[in-house]
Amino acid sequence: MAAYKRHVDTSTISDLTVARLSVYLRCVERLLDGGDIETVSSQELARRFNLNSAQIRKDLAYFGEFGVRGVGYNLRDLRQYIVEILGLNREHRLVIVGAGNLGTALCHYSGFTGGSFLVVGVLDSDPSRIGDPTPSGLLVEDASRLPEIVRQRGIEIGVITTPPAAAQSVCDQMVAAGLRTVLNFAPTRVKAPDGVYVKTVDLKVHLEELSFHITNTAPSR
Amino acid sequence: MAAYKRHVDTSTISDLTVARLSVYLRCVERLLDGGDIETVSSQELARRFNLNSAQIRKDLAYFGEFGVRGVGYNLRDLRQYIVEILGLNREHRLVIVGAGNLGTALCHYSGFTGGSFLVVGVLDSDPSRIGDPTPSGLLVEDASRLPEIVRQRGIEIGVITTPPAAAQSVCDQMVAAGLRTVLNFAPTRVKAPDGVYVKTVDLKVHLEELSFHITNTAPSR
Repeated sequence: MAAYKRHVDTSTISDLTVARLSVYLRCVERLLDGGDIETVSSQELARRFNLNSAQIRKDLAYFGEFGVRGVGYNLRDLRQYIVEILGLNREHRLVIVGAGNLGTALCHYSGFTGGSFLVVGVLDSDPSRIGDPTPSGLLVEDASRLPEIVRQRGIEIGVITTPPAAAQSVCDQMVAAGLRTVLNFAPTRVKAPDGVYVKTVDLKVHLEELSFHITNTAPSR
Repeated sequence: MAAYKRHVDTSTISDLTVARLSVYLRCVERLLDGGDIETVSSQELARRFNLNSAQIRKDLAYFGEFGVRGVGYNLRDLRQYIVEILGLNREHRLVIVGAGNLGTALCHYSGFTGGSFLVVGVLDSDPSRIGDPTPSGLLVEDASRLPEIVRQRGIEIGVITTPPAAAQSVCDQMVAAGLRTVLNFAPTRVKAPDGVYVKTVDLKVHLEELSFHITNTAPSR
């Protein structure tokens, strides 16, 4: 497996490129689960999963030379390659702030705790919620303890699941506690200083995709 | 505003293209909120939001002629254009099956109820949950009533928020009830017959994006 450039300039890589890497990883894992093939060309990958083969080659080439012309990608190498690019070869610890329905759902959502990610704290500012058990076994802790919890538990990622009105304040507290990556589920934009990466998740895009299919599939309903 | 092709062959349009249309819509809405510009070129749109200008032109051109060479897109026309492509110019009604934490969170999530989407039912098969009020004011109803609820309330989209083990069965029931678009939040793949569009949401991709930024931003932590 060829080496790739470890510290690429991520400012030039769009979120969409990174999202495609996650998609490629899912596709590769599905092919490996199938167990019947060992290599795949970008064309074959594109055909099976309705992707763009030129885009696949471009996305992967961005991080260094990889794949063999005329042969394609070895699936296990490709998986390992994307895992390393995405930084999934080690554990990242999460704290969730906002122990309402969404925060409680996420603390035992399989993708959030298992594999490369681990929820190690669920916090809330509402005294009536502190001490409540969550389905994952964690007890809800006081949001004012965020700085010590981040430091003591080696947390890298803060997840905001508060109501929109509290999101900016919680983001500010996360930044003050030393977090540099924030996943915001509150349906509002939050600002953070340079050097802090905030991703706001907009679940509505998925409904818009469905709406597109309802609207553009003939015969119309 | 130029006309676009209403019934394009959506089988040739990738989910990623549709997802980009949602992104463009958010960008256009942000520019309109700013209130200071009326037109935008694909280059300017790309520069402001870290997108790819050639990709923007290609994505929009797919649906027909639009934009004026050398001038760009009129923002209000562009918004209306994407709104129509995505089918957001009318209401789509949703039913959520699975009244646990995630289902309860989604039934009052702003993007899911408001604008073009409206949650009109929250169902569960657990008798102890039926009749429970949700934060949006809906009462949890018996999942066995799905067919009549879909028919009587003009529902187009089914949202699965059950545990993974129940997801396939709920999807089958949704298809039997006449639903042709399903949004699956259970972290498992579900199968549906041809003609039914199932989108499985994988929230882990967002964590992978953060992991990418943690890993590829020098100096490393």
